[in-house]
Amino acid sequence: MDYNFSKIMDSIKPSEIRELLKFASMPGMISFGGGMPNPLSFPLDEIKKIADDVIVNNGKLALQYGNTGGLPELKDEIAKLLLRTENIKTEGKNVIVTTGSQQALYAMGKIFVNPGETVMTEAPTYIGAISAFVANGVRMRGVPMDENGMRTDILQEKLDKLKSENIKPRFIYVIPNYQNPAGYTMSTERRKHLLDIAQDYKIPLIEDNPYGELRYYGPKMESLKSMERENEVIYLGTFSKVMAPGLRVGYVNADEKVIQKVNLLKQGLELATSSLSEFIAYEYLKRGIMLKQVPKTVELYRGKRDLMIKALEKYFPEGSTWSKPNGGMFIWATVNENIDTTKMAKRALENKIAYVSGASFYPDDVKRNNMRLNFTFSTDSEIEEGVKRLSKVVEEEAREIAAS
Amino acid sequence: MDYNFSKIMDSIKPSEIRELLKFASMPGMISFGGGMPNPLSFPLDEIKKIADDVIVNNGKLALQYGNTGGLPELKDEIAKLLLRTENIKTEGKNVIVTTGSQQALYAMGKIFVNPGETVMTEAPTYIGAISAFVANGVRMRGVPMDENGMRTDILQEKLDKLKSENIKPRFIYVIPNYQNPAGYTMSTERRKHLLDIAQDYKIPLIEDNPYGELRYYGPKMESLKSMERENEVIYLGTFSKVMAPGLRVGYVNADEKVIQKVNLLKQGLELATSSLSEFIAYEYLKRGIMLKQVPKTVELYRGKRDLMIKALEKYFPEGSTWSKPNGGMFIWATVNENIDTTKMAKRALENKIAYVSGASFYPDDVKRNNMRLNFTFSTDSEIEEGVKRLSKVVEEEAREIAAS
Repeated sequence: MDYNFSKIMDSIKPSEIRELLKFASMPGMISFGGGMPNPLSFPLDEIKKIADDVIVNNGKLALQYGNTGGLPELKDEIAKLLLRTENIKTEGKNVIVTTGSQQALYAMGKIFVNPGETVMTEAPTYIGAISAFVANGVRMRGVPMDENGMRTDILQEKLDKLKSENIKPRFIYVIPNYQNPAGYTMSTERRKHLLDIAQDYKIPLIEDNPYGELRYYGPKMESLKSMERENEVIYLGTFSKVMAPGLRVGYVNADEKVIQKVNLLKQGLELATSSLSEFIAYEYLKRGIMLKQVPKTVELYRGKRDLMIKALEKYFPEGSTWSKPNGGMFIWATVNENIDTTKMAKRALENKIAYVSGASFYPDDVKRNNMRLNFTFSTDSEIEEGVKRLSKVVEEEAREIAAS
Repeated sequence: MDYNFSKIMDSIKPSEIRELLKFASMPGMISFGGGMPNPLSFPLDEIKKIADDVIVNNGKLALQYGNTGGLPELKDEIAKLLLRTENIKTEGKNVIVTTGSQQALYAMGKIFVNPGETVMTEAPTYIGAISAFVANGVRMRGVPMDENGMRTDILQEKLDKLKSENIKPRFIYVIPNYQNPAGYTMSTERRKHLLDIAQDYKIPLIEDNPYGELRYYGPKMESLKSMERENEVIYLGTFSKVMAPGLRVGYVNADEKVIQKVNLLKQGLELATSSLSEFIAYEYLKRGIMLKQVPKTVELYRGKRDLMIKALEKYFPEGSTWSKPNGGMFIWATVNENIDTTKMAKRALENKIAYVSGASFYPDDVKRNNMRLNFTFSTDSEIEEGVKRLSKVVEEEAREIAAS
C-alpha cells in the first residue's frame, strides 16, 4: 500500500545527531556527539534499593496508570527542590510532571503556537527544542549569543522589527545556564533585561534549565523564574542530568493556566508518565540521594571539562576557538570559517571520532564552522585521544580546502 | 501575564473521564468509570526480581537514554509475541516501541492526517483515540456497530458518500476485539470485508488490539494484520493490560515507512521511552512471565465479567440492554432513551457510583443514553453493590423524567 503522510511529517528530516548514534557504537569510535550523562553518575545500589522498596510498598500504584499531572507527592517534592536549588517559591499545583523535558518542549510548541507562528530562541539552540518546535509547525527566529548568553539588545531590535511586520512571537525560549550547545551562561544584567523585555512586549519566557545543578565554576546564577514579576516565566526542569535519563522524568513549573493546558495535551499524548519512574524519582528526592549524588557528579564532570579544555589547548589547530563553560555538558568549538563541519563529519568518522556539527543547532541562519563537543560521557583517556584525532581531522580538512 | 494559547488547545475540553477520576477516590465510592487493570494481575514478586536483575546487570543502560525506536531486544521479543499470539509474521525492524498505546494513537493522528482532514472510526470508539485525534485537528466520522463489530456495509456507504464530496479519509481506526467501550468483537466476515474495503479504497487500517489476550469466551479471532495483503494494516499493541500500565510500554507493528515516521515524530515528542520500562518489559516477555500470568488474569476477569452480567440481569431496570463481551474490560449499557447519562452522572455520584457516560465515546453524532461499565478493577462485592446502586439511580432518573 502507498501511504500518504501528513505534510508536516514529510517536511521533517532525521536529525544528524540520530544518524550519528549509529556510528557511536562502532568499535574504536570515540563519540563527543551525544548528550549523555556518564553512567558513573548513576548510584546503582541506591536506585536498586529504591526500586525494591517501591515495588514492595507501593507496587500496586507504581505499576498502575498514574495521574496525567503526575504523582502528587512527587510534585510536592519538586516544589521543595525548586525552592532549595533555584529560590523559586511554588507549590505542587504549579507543577506538572512530563515524560522528560522533551515532552515539555513539545507541549510548549503545541500549546502556545499556531502552526506558522513565530518564537524567539538563542542561536545556536538545543537541537531537541528545534525538533519539538518544528514538529508543531513553529517558525524560529534566532538571536545571537556571546559569552554572556543571548544578546538581549539584538533580541529587542528583532522584536521591534517583527512588530513593524505585525508579527508577535509567542514565546522566547532560553537555556540561561551552561547553554546547550554553546556552553555559555547568561549574565545577571542580561537576565534582568530579558525579563524587562518579556514585560514590555508581553511575551512569555521559557526558561529551560537542565544543567543548573552541574556547576563547576563561577557563582550560582539566579533563575529567571525566581526573578519574575507576574508569572511571565515558564520553567522547565528534568531529572535526566541529575538522576537518570532512562526514567524519563521532567517537569514544568508555571502558572496554573499553563499547567492545565499541558495536562490537557498530555491526556492525548500518552495519558501519564510512567508511575514506576515517578515513584523512583520521588524516593530519590525524598531520601536526599540527589543532594548526596550531585556533588560527586559535579566533581567527575569538572575533571572531564578541564581535561577537554587542556586537550583543546594542546592539540587544536591555531585559529580555532572554544567556549569555556562553567557547567553543563558541552563545549562549542569554532574552526576556520572555510570549514563546513557537516561535510567534515565523514572524515571524522573515518578517523573514529564523532561530534555534532554546529549547523544542526541553528534555528534559522545557519553557521557552518562550529561543532558541539560533549565531555561528560567519554572516559578521560578517550577525551585526550578524541581531541587529538579531531585536531588531526580539522587540520587535514583545512589543508585540503586550502589546496583546492 | 495574560497567556495566548493556540487555537487547537483552546478548542479541547477536559474529558469527563478525567473529571471522574477525582471522584473515584472519594470514600465509599464504587467506580466502574476507569479502564484500569486489577492490581491483582500484577505479579509483584516477579516484577521485583526483574527490576533487581535489570538494575544489577544492565543498570548503566537501563538508566541511560535509550534508542528512539526502542530497545532492539525488546523489539525482537515483540515480533515473537506477535507471531505466537496473533499469527503475525514480522521482524524487529517493523516494530517501534511507544510510551503506551496512547502515544501510538497520537502518532497516527499526526503522521497520517493534515489538520482538518478526516478519519473513520467505530461509533462509539475509544475515548483516548478521540483525545489523540482531536489534539491533531483530525475530523472523525463514526460508523455504527452491532454485536459483530463495525457495520462495514455502512462504512462502505459512508466512504462512497465522502468520495462524492471529494473527501478521502486518511485511515480507518478499529478495535476489533472486545471493543472499548462497546465490548463487541468483529466477526470474521466483517474483518474480510474491512480488508477488501481498505484495498479497494486504498485507505490504511489501524488495528488497535489492547485486549486481544483477555479472552474469556468464544474463539480466538484472526488479527487483521495477519490477514492483510499488502501492508495495509498498522497494528497497535500495548503491555498495559497484560503486564502493567505503569510501565507505559506499547508498540506499533507496520511497514518500515510508517515505523520511520513514528520514529521521527518520537524524537520531537520525548526522545525515547523509559529504558528501565523497556528492560523490564523485555525480561517479562523473555522469562515467559506473560505466558504464565495471562491465564490467571483471564480467570480473574472472566469471573468479574460474569458477576457484573449476573448483577445487571438481577437488578437493572427493564428496557435496559447491555453488551455481553467475550473478553476485554468493558460492558456497554443502554438505558431508556429519555435518559441522558451525562446528566444522570450527578445523581450517580451522590449515590457513590461512577461510570463514564456514553456521549464521551462518540466521534461525531452523539448518543446520550449509554454508559461504559468497567468490570476489571472493582472487587466482586463492589461489582454487585455497584450495579445495585446504579440500577436505583437509573430507576430514579427515569421516574423523574416521566414525572416532569
